[in-house]
Amino acid sequence: MIQKKETTTQQERHSIHYQRPMTQQRKTSPHSFGANTQQTKTKKLRIIPLGGLEEVGRNMTLFEYDRDIIIVDMGLQFPEEDMPGIDYIIPNTNYLKGKEKNIRGVFITHGHMDHIGAIPHLMPKLGNPPMFTAVLTAGIIEKKQEDYPNVSSLNITVVNFESKINLGNFKVEFFHVNHNIPDVLGLAIYTPEGLVIHTGDFKFDHSPTTDKPADIGRIARLGSQNVLALMSDSTGAENPGYSVSEHEIQKTLDHILSKAKGRVIVATFSSLISRIQQIITISEKYDRKVAIDGYSMKTNIEIANKLGYLKFKRGTIIRPEQMKNYPNDKVSLMCTGAQGEGKAVLMRIVNKEHRHIQIKKDDTVIFSSSVVPGNERTVQNLKDQLYRQGASVVHYKMMDVHAGGHAQIEDLKMMINLIKPKFFIPIHGNYYMLRLHANIAENLGIPTSNTIVACNGNAIEMTKNSAIITKEKIPSNYVMVDGLGVGDVGNVVIRDRQQMSEDGMFTIVIIVDSKTGKIIGSPDIISRGFIYMKGSTELINETKTKVIEIVNKKASAEHNSNWAYIKDNVRDQIGQFLFNKTQRRPMVLPVVIEV
Amino acid sequence: MIQKKETTTQQERHSIHYQRPMTQQRKTSPHSFGANTQQTKTKKLRIIPLGGLEEVGRNMTLFEYDRDIIIVDMGLQFPEEDMPGIDYIIPNTNYLKGKEKNIRGVFITHGHMDHIGAIPHLMPKLGNPPMFTAVLTAGIIEKKQEDYPNVSSLNITVVNFESKINLGNFKVEFFHVNHNIPDVLGLAIYTPEGLVIHTGDFKFDHSPTTDKPADIGRIARLGSQNVLALMSDSTGAENPGYSVSEHEIQKTLDHILSKAKGRVIVATFSSLISRIQQIITISEKYDRKVAIDGYSMKTNIEIANKLGYLKFKRGTIIRPEQMKNYPNDKVSLMCTGAQGEGKAVLMRIVNKEHRHIQIKKDDTVIFSSSVVPGNERTVQNLKDQLYRQGASVVHYKMMDVHAGGHAQIEDLKMMINLIKPKFFIPIHGNYYMLRLHANIAENLGIPTSNTIVACNGNAIEMTKNSAIITKEKIPSNYVMVDGLGVGDVGNVVIRDRQQMSEDGMFTIVIIVDSKTGKIIGSPDIISRGFIYMKGSTELINETKTKVIEIVNKKASAEHNSNWAYIKDNVRDQIGQFLFNKTQRRPMVLPVVIEV
Repeated sequence: MIQKKETTTQQERHSIHYQRPMTQQRKTSPHSFGANTQQTKTKKLRIIPLGGLEEVGRNMTLFEYDRDIIIVDMGLQFPEEDMPGIDYIIPNTNYLKGKEKNIRGVFITHGHMDHIGAIPHLMPKLGNPPMFTAVLTAGIIEKKQEDYPNVSSLNITVVNFESKINLGNFKVEFFHVNHNIPDVLGLAIYTPEGLVIHTGDFKFDHSPTTDKPADIGRIARLGSQNVLALMSDSTGAENPGYSVSEHEIQKTLDHILSKAKGRVIVATFSSLISRIQQIITISEKYDRKVAIDGYSMKTNIEIANKLGYLKFKRGTIIRPEQMKNYPNDKVSLMCTGAQGEGKAVLMRIVNKEHRHIQIKKDDTVIFSSSVVPGNERTVQNLKDQLYRQGASVVHYKMMDVHAGGHAQIEDLKMMINLIKPKFFIPIHGNYYMLRLHANIAENLGIPTSNTIVACNGNAIEMTKNSAIITKEKIPSNYVMVDGLGVGDVGNVVIRDRQQMSEDGMFTIVIIVDSKTGKIIGSPDIISRGFIYMKGSTELINETKTKVIEIVNKKASAEHNSNWAYIKDNVRDQIGQFLFNKTQRRPMVLPVVIEV
Repeated sequence: MIQKKETTTQQERHSIHYQRPMTQQRKTSPHSFGANTQQTKTKKLRIIPLGGLEEVGRNMTLFEYDRDIIIVDMGLQFPEEDMPGIDYIIPNTNYLKGKEKNIRGVFITHGHMDHIGAIPHLMPKLGNPPMFTAVLTAGIIEKKQEDYPNVSSLNITVVNFESKINLGNFKVEFFHVNHNIPDVLGLAIYTPEGLVIHTGDFKFDHSPTTDKPADIGRIARLGSQNVLALMSDSTGAENPGYSVSEHEIQKTLDHILSKAKGRVIVATFSSLISRIQQIITISEKYDRKVAIDGYSMKTNIEIANKLGYLKFKRGTIIRPEQMKNYPNDKVSLMCTGAQGEGKAVLMRIVNKEHRHIQIKKDDTVIFSSSVVPGNERTVQNLKDQLYRQGASVVHYKMMDVHAGGHAQIEDLKMMINLIKPKFFIPIHGNYYMLRLHANIAENLGIPTSNTIVACNGNAIEMTKNSAIITKEKIPSNYVMVDGLGVGDVGNVVIRDRQQMSEDGMFTIVIIVDSKTGKIIGSPDIISRGFIYMKGSTELINETKTKVIEIVNKKASAEHNSNWAYIKDNVRDQIGQFLFNKTQRRPMVLPVVIEV
């Protein structure tokens, strides 16, 4: 049965289609239905990760059997340090070109950007296949679609833990796990070769604060069905022990709020609905009003509230500009910016660019989030600024004010022991995390030959008794999104950006008389990011003289000048000249214009 | 008495002057000698941090009394992420302009780059004053000077724990603390206002492996002398508990080497002499030869060995190219690159660019170092590559294979309790670390009014009974070193590099007939890092048409064209045009050339 809140009508939530009868009756693809028994020997289950292995983010996996394909997740990844200017990276779906009609459905495990972020870019290309997910995730996805008004609307079916979705050779059911957003789905994917369990992102929390504990009974029952393969989240595979329960976090936060003399400012991830609920609950306990700021956080709260995932008393939530109307010890603020993101609320507050809020002495700022690798230094600087302005800071290394969303080593063992799979496929994480996770499975008795550490673009071919990685190389490179361009920024552009960011650029414009082949006047030089030009007149003049020398020598040598050759000469010789003078290598760009 | 190894003669170590009699008899500056008692009331002790506060690195502090100045440390800092292309940053010494003759001496606490790295740049500017440091530090400094052949040689006096250096109003003695390089000096600075203790970088290690434990007895005796101020290392002020002893690290490393089936590769900081000694000792125990690779590491080992700071058996050390001659379980390799630095040995090995070494299956790679903030993602990628090539990786989060060099909270408390200062000045660390350290001191009973959290460029004025931060703003901005240039890359150049790294640059060359004011031909466009040019012919052509429109409209409007105005128009309008088309903002650079 399909979950449907009684108060929500088709009219109210226009773009999510609660196609009650459709999911179970959905037409199976005609060419494969009933053909399983005869053709099993030649047909195989193919599992193809297009993203999410070898990295944290950009999760997308295909399951293919004969002419049926289902897709799990469609995420984005944020760029590495060596990709300046790139907004984000999405999976390459070239493999699906010409196979669009085979795509029976897209399953989204939960509403984080690394699982939903590529939807607006990829769904239109893939012919907008039906999508299946939980109600909160559907709400978040639909909200994001509003940023893409030209994209045709999605066909989302909301599922719950009783749903059974039959799609050709596949039948998919769902089980409950914990994470740091509500409504996370684990997937039980029944295939002609056997049952595959895909955990999604998960942790076990036996005392969550806004959610039920993971359904260990259900997971155990799935584990009793001779599971063919377990695909399990590896993000926490190098962290020993068990993940901390949200209940512990709640206790710590309660302690901090009970002691705080001034305002409490909590910066966290905008999608951390459970943390937001905790702060609201504890603030109510201590008679604090709660202001919320940050576009993405407000949006997520709006959706969560509308769908009944947040509880607060009337009058608890105030607008940021109302904070000044209350004593310092009677207000809390929840906001974005715990990673030191340039334009997020916390950064605007410390930079005194926020319209309503400035840091006051005795403010307590809680960073209720981990630091995403790569952001450490930015976050250190942010902490500096907060202390300078008189606040004190609490972060997860000092107290338990944040629990990650991912199972740690002991939890991972428990999942493997519950599912008892024949084959083990670690997913979600850098390669070394996958490898460590495979080691954990091997230590629990899964034979090394049955653990499959795959890469993006591999095809894992499975039968009831075998699993191999084929020799295919399925395109899985980064597709970079920069502004309006998707995939138009390639390695050349990135390399140029890198070089210019190191030592700048040095353009030399040479005007040549087309009749004589001689330079007219002196070359013009436009340089940025190389050296302070006003302080370098001598160097610039020397360079101009050298350019004239090079051009006139080469140009006079031949009657019909080979300008490409001369440009190469200018580039090489001036590049070397500037390096000798400065030990820097700006990008030298000679332009020859004949008039 | 001055430490002097019997085997080292002036001839052998030409550039380090063991000026035995000089240090104690050094002429005090005539204007201040004997004047103390009369003039104390108008004269004050001034402590001026030029670097090292508000940051980790670039340590340099001035102590000034009347016309005597001593300097402690002269370090560099590595650049932040938003300073592309910068090699490193050194302190601004403008305050010392015209005061060079007052500089009585420079004290270097130890041989790490954040304490010695600015020496080649600053010592010549400061008139090459006498320098005082321990023997290993002197060796490291002299070695670095070889990279600067045009710089006049330093005048270094090697000191030990019996030395008393009288320099005008100052007398300096030294005490032994632990860190992760040998020969670290804590400073006891006697001034007319009282005794100031400067810890340098320090930790307490009661069972170090290549060093003696910190001299707690001596520190306690100093503490009994009514210490005026304690300046103490804050780098570890947010880390609870005690720092781990090197003895524990040794036990863990021993365990790993005893179990390793293949080669052991240990990547660490090149200056971590004690860790290098540990690996050599344990390797010898398990009959492993030790190869060492990495220029800076080899250099440091050479110096440490020459000065007697490293012990190994004849035949233990082999060259990297000899590794292949031994069974895998009979060799270890120590190398640089634990931070994923592009050109360091470990990176060259995994990138298969190393002449002699490639990763083999069953290699154990130990990252015996912490990850410097900002390098996390690079190190993750490095770990990925190692696992892909069949190695397994051990790092400090998994096992105690590294101990930091800095006192943690309990150690910091012990230092404060031992010294019992009247005033407390936290040094070395980000602002929030200084603030946390001040909180620790306050909790131990030092009045808030007596803890001084200063910033770079502050002057702290002290008398026997008072300490204030004056209103002076002493220049302490970053001086950036880029190639051969020191300080010639300023904010404008950095900002240009940042902008070009985000969205590239777009140069428009417009040739104009000087008589008619009209464009000749079509504008030339040179763009890099913006968009893939070959795929964007249409956009480029549209842009050219738009440029011609703008120029001809403006140029015809006036007889004598105002080209600056027209260029501004082109920049703004084309910038907006490109943004509308691509949502990117390349740096637009119009060039108008009249012919």
